[in-house]
Amino acid sequence: MKHLELDLGARSYPIFIAPGILGDGALWLKYIRGQQVCIVSNDTIAPLYLASLKQQLADKSVCEVILPDGESHKTLAVLENIFDTLLQANHNRSTTLIALGGGVVGDMCGFAAACYQRGVQFIQIPTTLLAMVDSSVGGKTGVNHPLGKNMIGAFHQPNCVLADLNLLNTLPDREFSAGMAEVIKYGLICDADFFVWLEQNMSALMGRDTELLSEAVYRCCVNKANVVADDEREGGRRAILNLGHTFGHAIETAEGYGNWLHGEAVAAGTALALALSVKMGWLPPEVEKRGLALLVQADLPIAPPPNMNVDQFLQLMGRDKKVLDGQLRLILLTGLGEAVVSSEASVEIISQVLLAAGVGA
Amino acid sequence: MKHLELDLGARSYPIFIAPGILGDGALWLKYIRGQQVCIVSNDTIAPLYLASLKQQLADKSVCEVILPDGESHKTLAVLENIFDTLLQANHNRSTTLIALGGGVVGDMCGFAAACYQRGVQFIQIPTTLLAMVDSSVGGKTGVNHPLGKNMIGAFHQPNCVLADLNLLNTLPDREFSAGMAEVIKYGLICDADFFVWLEQNMSALMGRDTELLSEAVYRCCVNKANVVADDEREGGRRAILNLGHTFGHAIETAEGYGNWLHGEAVAAGTALALALSVKMGWLPPEVEKRGLALLVQADLPIAPPPNMNVDQFLQLMGRDKKVLDGQLRLILLTGLGEAVVSSEASVEIISQVLLAAGVGA
Repeated sequence: MKHLELDLGARSYPIFIAPGILGDGALWLKYIRGQQVCIVSNDTIAPLYLASLKQQLADKSVCEVILPDGESHKTLAVLENIFDTLLQANHNRSTTLIALGGGVVGDMCGFAAACYQRGVQFIQIPTTLLAMVDSSVGGKTGVNHPLGKNMIGAFHQPNCVLADLNLLNTLPDREFSAGMAEVIKYGLICDADFFVWLEQNMSALMGRDTELLSEAVYRCCVNKANVVADDEREGGRRAILNLGHTFGHAIETAEGYGNWLHGEAVAAGTALALALSVKMGWLPPEVEKRGLALLVQADLPIAPPPNMNVDQFLQLMGRDKKVLDGQLRLILLTGLGEAVVSSEASVEIISQVLLAAGVGA
Repeated sequence: MKHLELDLGARSYPIFIAPGILGDGALWLKYIRGQQVCIVSNDTIAPLYLASLKQQLADKSVCEVILPDGESHKTLAVLENIFDTLLQANHNRSTTLIALGGGVVGDMCGFAAACYQRGVQFIQIPTTLLAMVDSSVGGKTGVNHPLGKNMIGAFHQPNCVLADLNLLNTLPDREFSAGMAEVIKYGLICDADFFVWLEQNMSALMGRDTELLSEAVYRCCVNKANVVADDEREGGRRAILNLGHTFGHAIETAEGYGNWLHGEAVAAGTALALALSVKMGWLPPEVEKRGLALLVQADLPIAPPPNMNVDQFLQLMGRDKKVLDGQLRLILLTGLGEAVVSSEASVEIISQVLLAAGVGA
């Protein structure tokens, strides 16, 4: 079993990575401090794993909330279901919520935990590759707004994260690829050695070799934990984790939440960020080529949707959380494994890159 | 002008108390760090004070959200209006929200600030006595749920609190009295000298003597600031600020939000807490009498609504945030100015006190 600690002082917590740990209650039951537990899952995952999770919780008083699956349901209105269930079951401040699902379930469950009675504890059990390597770690929680992704939320850290690699066995290929976009991200922004390792192992990873996947999830979590420990509330460096995300959020919002998976939009956004980094003269073109090749090998899109136009992109990007006092801040690369947060790219140069990528004028 | 500081380390902030400070931008504009400002108010207060507030903000980029007035609108659904406006106006993470209103506006604006883009800054400009002495100070924010009051929220501290006593000139008598319930609370729970001062000055206070009101607001804020500085997130002692509130929340929820004002429900709840404290043998009956006399002098109810019954009370109280692992914890008095958090009162003894107060069997 692999194990690491996210170091945030009093809010520190462990991340456990191994096949089968969902069934190993002895390992993680101690992170549930009260008697009440509320499992939040969705209608795809619950039929697969809810029963075995509940088996481990036989000694607790358990209620459950099964949300509709998909990014389009990540809204304040759907969030209310969690509060309804918690109150109907008389759950108090000592309750623990458990997120059993992908990024959407984790973000919503975490946000509900942040807000219920002004904050209760929660545990992340990610069931997708994307959630294991990215969204379940670091305490970002929230819901979407029709005008922008993740616009309503909180920083709220879990008690622990359990990445059970066996849960990936039921993950559809498209979702698996989407998770790989975030895996590749870590190589690009802060871990050149890992990027090289990914180039060497991508075909085995796409074949879902458990040993290699375990290593990949661990490396991603170590990288994320380091960045988050330095800058929990994204005052500065944590923003590099958003490589491709400002472009990507614009795609998700424009195309309708869930039509492009988050990881797919991040992949296309990463391709744009690579192109922009080259256009700025900051990144050697061959690093861009290697990045694109790895995304393609992971069956990910590297071009934005052709039905979008430049103005739409710029308007949606202008609403992103990385905007500060009118300045659009983007994550760009200055080398393999080296990212910067920059507002130096002008609207003109961003437009040129979008046009070159096939976006309408 | 009176001025105190709530000491919370990096989250410390000043509270300014004086007639006319709303017009003294030189004093408080420095607490707005960015260019964007969003004023949140309601349809009663906005016609009275929005224009003069905006005059002070002439150099800022200002948008506004006018909510419907009243506790019944303190919901997640109404909260969405704030997010809609912020996103439509492209407000980013450096925006500052300003709550211009009573407790409902302050709680909702503060919660919106806690959640918008995972947290932006905000300022409290309370316009009711209750908000000046209690809800605007200490960072509790949130909305109600049909099944329980303030069940969804966050701890989020403002940048500063501006208590402009001139704003009380337009406050209806019933709301003024409601605020006095929280004023009396501070005397009962932690400041016997202040309680005696209130006994001596209540009739002049009810006549809205500005000098005396200023002193009362200051004393309340000093007491609240001390309690909150010791226990920001209510792990322990902060709970004493909820004297009468567990009973009171049950009344508010049962009667429909807004039919009993929060302060009225707290007054009736305080009367029940006093009676229970006496029944436990912890409080001399003459302190109960002095407490009731002061509530009556402030034109406040001291009996619960007769249409409620004991079971309804107990069920609603069982859902309160002060419940921990099934134990109902109540704030009781052991003397004038001395409160404890206790789960020693049995359901039987609470029922007896409710029945004696006229609640149905």
